[in-house]
Parts: sequence; structure tokens; C-alpha cells
Amino acid sequence: MKKILSFVDSSKQNYLDELKTFLAIPSVSSQKDCDNDTRRCAEWVRDQMLIIGLSKSQIFETKGHPIVFGELITDSKKPTILFYGHYDVQPVDPLNLWTTPPFEADVRNGNLYARGSVDDKGQVFAHFKAIEAILKHEKELPVNIKMLIEGEEEVGSANLENFVKENKKMLKADLVLISDSAMYAKGIPSICYGLRGLAYMEIEVVGPNRDLHSGSFGGAVHNPIQALSEIISSLHDENGKVTIPGFYNDVQKITSKERKAFSKLPFSDKKYMKDLGIAKLYGEKGFSTNERTWVRPTLECNGIWGGYTEEGAKTVLPSKATAKISMRLVPNQTSKKMEKLFSNHIKKIAPKSIQVSVKALHGGEAVVTPLKSPGVKAAVSALQKAFGKSPLFQREGGSIPIVVQFKHLLGLDTVLLGFGLPDENAHSPDEHINLDNFFGGIRTAIYFYYDLPQFLKKG
Amino acid sequence: MKKILSFVDSSKQNYLDELKTFLAIPSVSSQKDCDNDTRRCAEWVRDQMLIIGLSKSQIFETKGHPIVFGELITDSKKPTILFYGHYDVQPVDPLNLWTTPPFEADVRNGNLYARGSVDDKGQVFAHFKAIEAILKHEKELPVNIKMLIEGEEEVGSANLENFVKENKKMLKADLVLISDSAMYAKGIPSICYGLRGLAYMEIEVVGPNRDLHSGSFGGAVHNPIQALSEIISSLHDENGKVTIPGFYNDVQKITSKERKAFSKLPFSDKKYMKDLGIAKLYGEKGFSTNERTWVRPTLECNGIWGGYTEEGAKTVLPSKATAKISMRLVPNQTSKKMEKLFSNHIKKIAPKSIQVSVKALHGGEAVVTPLKSPGVKAAVSALQKAFGKSPLFQREGGSIPIVVQFKHLLGLDTVLLGFGLPDENAHSPDEHINLDNFFGGIRTAIYFYYDLPQFLKKG
Repeated sequence: MKKILSFVDSSKQNYLDELKTFLAIPSVSSQKDCDNDTRRCAEWVRDQMLIIGLSKSQIFETKGHPIVFGELITDSKKPTILFYGHYDVQPVDPLNLWTTPPFEADVRNGNLYARGSVDDKGQVFAHFKAIEAILKHEKELPVNIKMLIEGEEEVGSANLENFVKENKKMLKADLVLISDSAMYAKGIPSICYGLRGLAYMEIEVVGPNRDLHSGSFGGAVHNPIQALSEIISSLHDENGKVTIPGFYNDVQKITSKERKAFSKLPFSDKKYMKDLGIAKLYGEKGFSTNERTWVRPTLECNGIWGGYTEEGAKTVLPSKATAKISMRLVPNQTSKKMEKLFSNHIKKIAPKSIQVSVKALHGGEAVVTPLKSPGVKAAVSALQKAFGKSPLFQREGGSIPIVVQFKHLLGLDTVLLGFGLPDENAHSPDEHINLDNFFGGIRTAIYFYYDLPQFLKKG
Repeated sequence: MKKILSFVDSSKQNYLDELKTFLAIPSVSSQKDCDNDTRRCAEWVRDQMLIIGLSKSQIFETKGHPIVFGELITDSKKPTILFYGHYDVQPVDPLNLWTTPPFEADVRNGNLYARGSVDDKGQVFAHFKAIEAILKHEKELPVNIKMLIEGEEEVGSANLENFVKENKKMLKADLVLISDSAMYAKGIPSICYGLRGLAYMEIEVVGPNRDLHSGSFGGAVHNPIQALSEIISSLHDENGKVTIPGFYNDVQKITSKERKAFSKLPFSDKKYMKDLGIAKLYGEKGFSTNERTWVRPTLECNGIWGGYTEEGAKTVLPSKATAKISMRLVPNQTSKKMEKLFSNHIKKIAPKSIQVSVKALHGGEAVVTPLKSPGVKAAVSALQKAFGKSPLFQREGGSIPIVVQFKHLLGLDTVLLGFGLPDENAHSPDEHINLDNFFGGIRTAIYFYYDLPQFLKKG
């Protein structure tokens, strides 16, 4: 173990150089003009997996972006980890807010800046290097490992469920391991045991059948931007509650035990506000900030556009206006039901002076992993050794829909072992990963592989 | 007169060919990348004015786009018309909604389609051809004529007021003539005697200091799109009235006489709704459609944007959202006062969870021309002869701020002699002008020049 860890320590610069080539590929899964690069990225992942020693690595075609799968099975008696990650990334706009180009990784102040650095290429790469480091010093890994790296996580993993269904045997394992989340705070390792689900919608409001001169027609026609604003503003009440009937019906209530645990976590609303540059918090009355983002369902506008959006003044009364709106879901809500509730409500409240259409873009379910599972215990042990501190237990507001599918289709619990930080701009300009956490992540992965067998026996 | 009119009749194809070269120049005054074309357009206008016989035509530089001025003074005893028009045009987006390219004029179904065809190049060109036709058959015009064609009407005529102030002597005249408005309806010539004013604003709402992951932060931070929607939706009450305190304070009330005249105009809400493809009208309670757009002040959203607006789903909680909002004003409101009312109100109602900034982009005042003025009488006579029908009197919802300045700075009333139609998409894709009205416009201009002297004597 010592040899392995000191090898990791001496390889830091090599790791960074290699990771930069991974981050240089603009694998933006939502943008068609990036399709060739997204495929190139899948090939990079396959080649990397072959290089580190997963001899069977190959690309599987889907209806969308390809999936890369590889494995190293040395002993059927050893526990088997199914590692899941994704090689696709979020779009980079607005590009002008990046300090350095998003696909030219740059090290500044102990961080590595690039699109995908923390979400999720950097974290996937940490596991590649953990496996490589062990195999450079030992004949075999202490566990069997299967790696499933997909290219559509940022667009809803539309083809992953089918792939899992069709390859249940190939994916057989004892647990799923994912590194695609954030630690609680800098220097505070943590295990994430809950994720919210998602239902992502688009509303289009159409008024007149053409753009009109706002002088000649203004005042006699319901303006689609105004109508859309009226719809959006009606979706929250004065207590920050979502007004869609039935929105909270299925929500699993927070237990007083969990509430107490949350309240003991180091957290400061003041610091949170200062970090975000806001003077006042907003949210559902009666819940703390962590409760609002971890265990309560919410509704967010992700985008809006309509009319003239260039420089200067154009006196147009536009024909239509559009918004992207997503709901974050908690156990026991289902995305299908929430999509329907949303659509029905919007259609019901839309005034007759305009026409509205609603479509669901993608969805996924919330998930919570039992804290007593062997995987979670091994993760606690590994983090303790790698970071010298006992991890906290936390939940997360984001979504990894595939975790639910692993439970439903393969019967597997998932361990969420994230090395990111909450303020690393996962989906924004200047995304980055802290280098201490990145290298700590490699060490944690190594310890996890070594510790898991004993907890699985005990469990 | 017969010779002149039959020359006009036989020149139709030449006129269209020539007008197409005028319309081919993308003189979009609001877009910097069109600046060279906008200047080229000013040169085209100057050359055209020299060709038709306005010997002193020249370009005057301003801080923005140049102004073209030319004159033909043959006898100081003759009445002098100051003709005003503009050679700049609105932006063309969304480009994909144009049936044919906006700067390649196309004749279809008796209409000429191109950006600027009706607003205002086509109408200005009709006067060029009227003057040319007279001077081809007579030694001199029946009036003195001064032509002032500017390049910033679509962006608020920022430099015109100064130009008028500095050139009062050069611009001395008996009345102002403008052809930049619409007839009441097809086959119904009309004289527009009232225009609304304008105050065009931009609001920016800033929430967190960066784009956030909507999963991790959604529910704990006031979303700028939501906050902007809340602000916009609060600006009208359930009766369609604008809620800004003092908004209606200075409004000149409609007289029962004018109200009666409006109610006698041929107008059908049903036809209006059918033409626009809307199932229900919207507007201030207690007023008819024409009253809402002609004599009542209104508030319109002209544009909105924020967050992710590309294809697919991006789970972002954006840092900011922006809207362009304009107010249409009526006598005796002033744009400066309304801009202030608006700004103060927005700042007052903005919640503390976000920051809001408001700026005024441009403004102009409403205006009404007396129906008994000699110019209006000459216009009635000219329209009767050119179209074979007595014109209606109407008002318009749009704005020509310079009309107020001509009154204030030069003491001149303006005659608004428009040859457009209300559904010719002045600021939208597929802008067009009806060819019968275009050629009728040339005839009307000729009659107007010949009839004006006798009414000015009588008046």
C-alpha cells in the first residue's frame, strides 16, 4: 500500500498532464455540432481503460452517444464493484465569463479549471489512476471491477436504461460506486446518501400569429412575454411554496432525527449568502437552506426567451415566448406523475388570450442509500484514511437518475463518493476541481478497493 | 396634370426596379455591423435626390448615422413643404420567418416584400417619384420642397433634435409632411392625426453572482427569471390597467365626440382577432380596441432573456435575467416623467433577494394635429382625387417623436399622409407594401403638391 500511495504522490504532474487531454475534448452531449468530439471522447475513455488494464474495454453503440464498458475480473470470489461515471459535459455558454477557455485546462490557486473538471471527467479519471497505480505494483486488484462510462448523463441518460436492461448479466455486481457529487465543504469529506429527482419541462406561449409592432397593437393583444411571466410568477406563493395542486402530496417527510443531524452540520446562512453575493435568502417557509435543497421538492426556471434580445430597442410585440422550467423531486415523488401534474396545471391556468404548449424534456427519480450498507461503511473507512477525518453524512439537491435504475434493474445500492466541492461551478463558467481533493480522491479510491471486501464479509 | 399622371402610370415597372435597389441596402440603424451599409444608404438617398432635381442635396454628419437634406426653392411666394422620412430600417430577426430574403425585394400577390418596403423607404420613394414626374413635365414644382431624410428613426432619432435646433433657418417651412404611417384599411384612405409617444426601458435582475447548478441550489436562492417574471406580471392588474402609481395621472381624456367618431369607424373585433389568430382580446377594461391602441397609454414587453436558451436541457439557475419593456404614451404624458415613474416603481417593488437595474433606452412624446389645418384639408383633397374616396380620420398607436419636435422647435404642424396598411408587418418578418397603395401614394403626393397652395391661401 505504501508503495502504491507514494507512486501516486510522485505521479501528480503526469496525472494533470493526462487529465488535460481528457478535458480538452468538447464532449457537450446536448449540442449536435459536438457529436464528433463526443464520440472521440468515448474512444479516449476506451483507450484509457485499455491502458490501465481493463482488458475487455469497448464501445457500445446506442441510439445516442456511445457507452464505454470495461472490466477486470480476477477472482469470482472477490466482491465486484460496478463503477459508473460519464464522459459528457454541460454546454459552456456564456463563454465570455470563463477566465480561461473551457477546453484548455488551467491550474490556478490549487484548482484545475476546465469544463468537466469536476463534473465528471476529473472524478472518473481519479478512479482510472487508482486502478492503474495498484496494477503497477500488484498482480491483481483486491476487487473485481466493472466500469460503465456513459455519454448522455447531462441530457437525461435516455439510452442507459435500455443498455442496463439488455446487459444485466454483464453488469452483475455487489454494489454501484459513483464519484459525481460534492464533498460537504473544503476539508470536510462526506458521503452523499440522497439525491433529488428531476422533471425538466419546456413551456411555449403563443399569442398573435406573427410579431407585431408594439405601437400599433400594444394594449389590445395579450403579450406572450407578459402571459408567460404571469404563469411563472403564479407557480410560487408568498411563502415560497409551489402552487401546483398535488405538488407536495407524495413527499416523504423529513424525520426529526434527520432534521437534527442536518442542523448539526457546519453551515452558515450568512456565509452562503456572502459566497453567492445575495442579500436575502429565498425559499419554502419553515425549512432550512439544507432542507430546502436536499429534502424538499422545488421548481426552478432554467431559461426564458422571447421578442427582441439584441442591443438597442426594437418595438416588437412578439408572437411567442418560451421558458425552460425544472422540478427537483424527493422520495416518493415520480417524475412521470410530476410532469403530468405540471402540464395539466399550466394548461388549466393559461388564459384564453394565448395558447400554451408544454413538453417534458427529461426526468429521473430521487434516491436515498441506507447508511448501514457495507459500501457506505467501506467509504467511511476509505475517506478516514485518505483525508485523515471522519466523513459527514449529507444529501444533495442534484440528480443522478441512473442510481434509481441500478436499484430497480440490478437490485444494487449505490455509494456516492464525491470529491467535488459545492462551489466548483459544476454547470457554470470557470468550472474547476480542487487539486487536493482530486489527489485525495485517487487515494480514497485505492483504500475503498482494499477495504470493501472486509465490510462485505461482515455485512 | 394628365401627362404627369399617365407618365406615372407607364413608369410602374421602372419604379419597382429602382425601389428594389433602395430596399437592397441593409440600413439597420440599431446594429453596428450594418453601419457601412447605413452610410451607403444615406449616399443612395442623396444621389436619388440629386437625380430627381433637388440640386442642393447633401449629407450632414451627426454623432450617429448621417442625415440627408435637399431642397428645391423656386419661388419664395410659394408655400414650402418640409418633407420628413427615414432611410433606416428595423432589424430582420427572426430571419427564418421571412418567405423571401428581407433585402431582396420580391413582388407577390400585388405586394412588394422587403424590410423597409412600407417603413419607410417605400413611402419616401413615392415622394421622390412624385417630384420627379412633375419636373419631367413642368419647369417647376407648384410648391417649394425641402426633404429631410434621417437614418436613426428606428433607434429614437437621438441626433435629429440637435440638427433641427442648429438648422432652424434651413428648415423653415409652412408645414411638415410625413408619409410613415398606415391607412385605416385596404381601400380606405385615411389621415392620421394622432400618434402615441414612447418610453423604452430595459430591466436587469441579478441574483447570485454566478450561474448555479439548479439541483444543488434550487429552492434556496431567488431565481432571477422568477423574480423578473414576478415584477413583469405585477405591472398589470386584473382589469388590464398598468399598476405603476401615477401612470394615468397626466392622460388627456378622450372626448365623447372623439369616442363617437371612433365607434363609427368600420372595425370588427372578430375580424381583428381572426387576423391575429387569437381567441380572446386583452386590454384595459372599459375601452374599445381602437381606444386602447390610439388614446390610452400602455405597457408592453418587447423582449426577455435569461438562463439557458439553446436546444435541450441545462440545469442552470442563472445569475441574471433581462427584459426590454416599453410604454406607449398619449397627450399630455412626457417620456422623461414616465421613465422616472417606471424606474422608481421597479426599484421600489424589487425584492431584497435580488438586485435590479433600470435604464431608459429612448423616448418620444405623443402628438395630435388639428383637423382644421390647411395641410390636413389639402391631404383630404389629394386622397379623394388619388383614391376616389373621402378619407377617414384616425389615430395611430405607434410613435414618430420628431413630430413633437417640429412643433416645438419650428412651430410647424405635421400632416401624416400614410400609404401603408396596418397588417403589412412593419416591424416583423415579411414586411410589405401594397402596390396599389404605393402607386396611389405617388398620385396623392402629386395632387397634394398642387392642392396645398389654394388651401394655404384660404386658411
